[in-house]
Amino acid sequence: MRPEIERLVVLDREQTLVSHIESVLSWDMETYMPPKAVEERAEQLAFLEGLAHAKLANPEMGRLLEGLGSTPANPMGLESLRPEERSYLRALRLAYDRATRLPAELVTELARSTALAQAAWVEARAANDFAAFAPHLKGLIGLYRRKAACLAPERPAYDVLLDLYEPGATEESLAEVFRALRKDLVALLGKIASRPQVDDSFLHRPCPESRQAAICAWAMETLGFDQARGRLDTTAHPFTSTLGTDDIRITTHYHPEGLASSLFSTLHETGHALYELGIEPPAAFRRTRLSEASSMGIHESQSRLWENIVGRSAAFWEAHYGKLRDLAGPALEGVDLDSFVRAINKVEPSLIRIEADEVTYCLHVILRFELESDLLSGRLDVEGLPAAWRAKMAELLGLAPPDDASGCLQDIHWACGYFGYFPSYALGNLYASQLWDRMKEVLPNVEFSLSQGDPGPVREWLRERIHRPGSALLPGELVEKATGKALDPAHFVAYLNEKYARIYGF
Amino acid sequence: MRPEIERLVVLDREQTLVSHIESVLSWDMETYMPPKAVEERAEQLAFLEGLAHAKLANPEMGRLLEGLGSTPANPMGLESLRPEERSYLRALRLAYDRATRLPAELVTELARSTALAQAAWVEARAANDFAAFAPHLKGLIGLYRRKAACLAPERPAYDVLLDLYEPGATEESLAEVFRALRKDLVALLGKIASRPQVDDSFLHRPCPESRQAAICAWAMETLGFDQARGRLDTTAHPFTSTLGTDDIRITTHYHPEGLASSLFSTLHETGHALYELGIEPPAAFRRTRLSEASSMGIHESQSRLWENIVGRSAAFWEAHYGKLRDLAGPALEGVDLDSFVRAINKVEPSLIRIEADEVTYCLHVILRFELESDLLSGRLDVEGLPAAWRAKMAELLGLAPPDDASGCLQDIHWACGYFGYFPSYALGNLYASQLWDRMKEVLPNVEFSLSQGDPGPVREWLRERIHRPGSALLPGELVEKATGKALDPAHFVAYLNEKYARIYGF
Repeated sequence: MRPEIERLVVLDREQTLVSHIESVLSWDMETYMPPKAVEERAEQLAFLEGLAHAKLANPEMGRLLEGLGSTPANPMGLESLRPEERSYLRALRLAYDRATRLPAELVTELARSTALAQAAWVEARAANDFAAFAPHLKGLIGLYRRKAACLAPERPAYDVLLDLYEPGATEESLAEVFRALRKDLVALLGKIASRPQVDDSFLHRPCPESRQAAICAWAMETLGFDQARGRLDTTAHPFTSTLGTDDIRITTHYHPEGLASSLFSTLHETGHALYELGIEPPAAFRRTRLSEASSMGIHESQSRLWENIVGRSAAFWEAHYGKLRDLAGPALEGVDLDSFVRAINKVEPSLIRIEADEVTYCLHVILRFELESDLLSGRLDVEGLPAAWRAKMAELLGLAPPDDASGCLQDIHWACGYFGYFPSYALGNLYASQLWDRMKEVLPNVEFSLSQGDPGPVREWLRERIHRPGSALLPGELVEKATGKALDPAHFVAYLNEKYARIYGF
Repeated sequence: MRPEIERLVVLDREQTLVSHIESVLSWDMETYMPPKAVEERAEQLAFLEGLAHAKLANPEMGRLLEGLGSTPANPMGLESLRPEERSYLRALRLAYDRATRLPAELVTELARSTALAQAAWVEARAANDFAAFAPHLKGLIGLYRRKAACLAPERPAYDVLLDLYEPGATEESLAEVFRALRKDLVALLGKIASRPQVDDSFLHRPCPESRQAAICAWAMETLGFDQARGRLDTTAHPFTSTLGTDDIRITTHYHPEGLASSLFSTLHETGHALYELGIEPPAAFRRTRLSEASSMGIHESQSRLWENIVGRSAAFWEAHYGKLRDLAGPALEGVDLDSFVRAINKVEPSLIRIEADEVTYCLHVILRFELESDLLSGRLDVEGLPAAWRAKMAELLGLAPPDDASGCLQDIHWACGYFGYFPSYALGNLYASQLWDRMKEVLPNVEFSLSQGDPGPVREWLRERIHRPGSALLPGELVEKATGKALDPAHFVAYLNEKYARIYGF
């Protein structure tokens, strides 16, 4: 390997290491940190973020990239380099260019403000007090507008932020996909509404935390999460975090009034974790940014695939329902497999995104997509958010949230500054069903394996095709390579129609 | 304040912040980190330690100190400065001089090696496998010899290391104190042995973890630990760690075979935590190194005072025993107050230091003091440690450990590189009883308050006299100021003789 690339790897590894240290502090902030520590923690995170930024915006990195022919216009550099080297240069060039456009002072301010906003969100949500969170949200919107303006002053702020999560995505392109999707989903919802509703009342039987914890531990284990390289904890909002390439942590939340929420959030986060655990760049690029995911849309495809396509399938529960019933105790007493599978696939407009069924889920995403675009562009101000949320909820799902805790305070994302993230969930659904269709083509026994209790073929196919390359491939390249064609929403719509025709019998 | 001091504070705060970040990572490593993450964590810690070192050994700091007249010979600097400024300069000068004597490469190597050694220790102890830990210990001894040689090549290594925990302590001065102490303790043990033994069999009744956890939470609360500024977790070896001035965490270990170990370790660590929580330098020096403890001997005086002088006193349990019995359930059924107080003060040579009674405790310290001095000087090699431990155990306590897990693998300290720390525990006992005697003089009702359930007077007196100044005063100054005289071991010996004459009736 050329010494310039070796030197880039050294610099990049140190930056990756600092990012992982930040993740340790953020993870701790969400899980165990005592409340009065939040201000110092915000300072610690701001310091680290500034350090990570300085390491990335290091002029030496710029000189090395240029020396290897990598420029903004030709990020992959010299054609004489090996393919993996060129992919690496492209990933690094993108990160370097972003970093050099952001002033250090803005970077540390973003870290400090999001840390404080997350703590404020936890309290505001628990107290159902939007007014307490509003100043934080307002401050963050201002900061993220500035960030977008620094990154690409000529483009709309929301487009710039979308691009951070899904390279190439724009508001216009997403709006087009979402318009068609909404039409298809509404049509499907109409068919479902014409049929008798599924009974899922038993899913609301109380289930003690200790039983839910045992169920979640079993679920992680069953999908193949290596517990020596990660763990499960509890937080207000479930997430997955990478504290090191061998330290992937997920969280869940135990609701005493039923086991479904923690079970499916654990399957979801395990899907994310399997992705992170499966990334394996060539040895020379371990622990660099090639160890990162391709995009958040791809990330969500992994979580949604395990949560829904596998985790809500009849095949999966054919193998595992007996075990689940043992672990659940009275909560599933007298409930047979078929009733369980129907119940976990009940379709009904509801208030909370992370508990939404597969059909209405994307409507929750569309709601957030439209609102965050309005917030970023200034068409909507923060004070107006709760009312705008209620209006959209009525329009898209026909529901009226009783309070902001189950309305615009339900998600942590905006408190983290993740403006532009939500569309990733919808893209994840689209990617996931296209990947699933491909798997069924190339692995004809894949559903049979699931029904025999072996998710190995699914996991290993994903590991090879999706996980291993990390950020060496852009999402479009990854999907094209894995499925032979570009992203096509038809797979998702067909998947839903076929599945729910079976569940609801139409 | 002079701008040079303001600038020093800025530099020093950043260094303190990095140290706190290190503490977050270390705490996580001991509590929740998945096992395969240890190598990356060691790299993360090594990186941070290098960063903290570079911030401290910053030549700008040296220039600023010198500009203010602070030199190794006159650390407090210009006489025209205010007393708190002079104390600050002294603390900073000491840290700066140490840092500049250590090469950066050694600093990061120490951090990396101790992180790996701690993980190896946890496994070796669980597996009772000294051979698996020996190479780590050998490596650390070599590194700490080098560290001592860098800090003060002309002095014996062990003296240099002792000085890091207790400024001014030397092997010779400690050996002299310990010789006299050993004689007094052996004499007292003889008197106790001539009396009928106390019955503590009920302390070995099984007690489920959930009850022990409730007892420990109650104990922290009762002593006045602000749970919004800290928390309790579990680890192989209990400790207290400062993750921020508002983030002080303690740990304990629940042994299913009895509640005493976790209860008294929690009282002990709460004593440490109250010290850290009580440090309050003048506002201009908050979150600098004045927010650190005066010495480890003083630190242990706080933990030992709460664990033993308060926590094993009849007065304390007069107020609280009813509550404890409620929380303990069957484990204390039918046990009256007097029997309980006698049982928790049973004197009997035993294998494990942290569970030793107050009389034999210092013999455990003397054992470690002699062995670590031998290890550092090369008089004893690592392979010979298990045998040497058994020989000293026989000589000092008349016991033979059945295995290394309850022998030389019982403490985490050497795996952390804390060579020279153990004497702090003995000094802590000496300081604690001298402070206690002073409290009884100036607060004649202090024992009555304890018996009424109010530890406030003890805590507040300690906060004012011992905690608040942090490292502004050296341990000798602190004790002199608080008690009117230098450290005098007679207080401890008198305390023990009086107390155990009562317990054992001689």
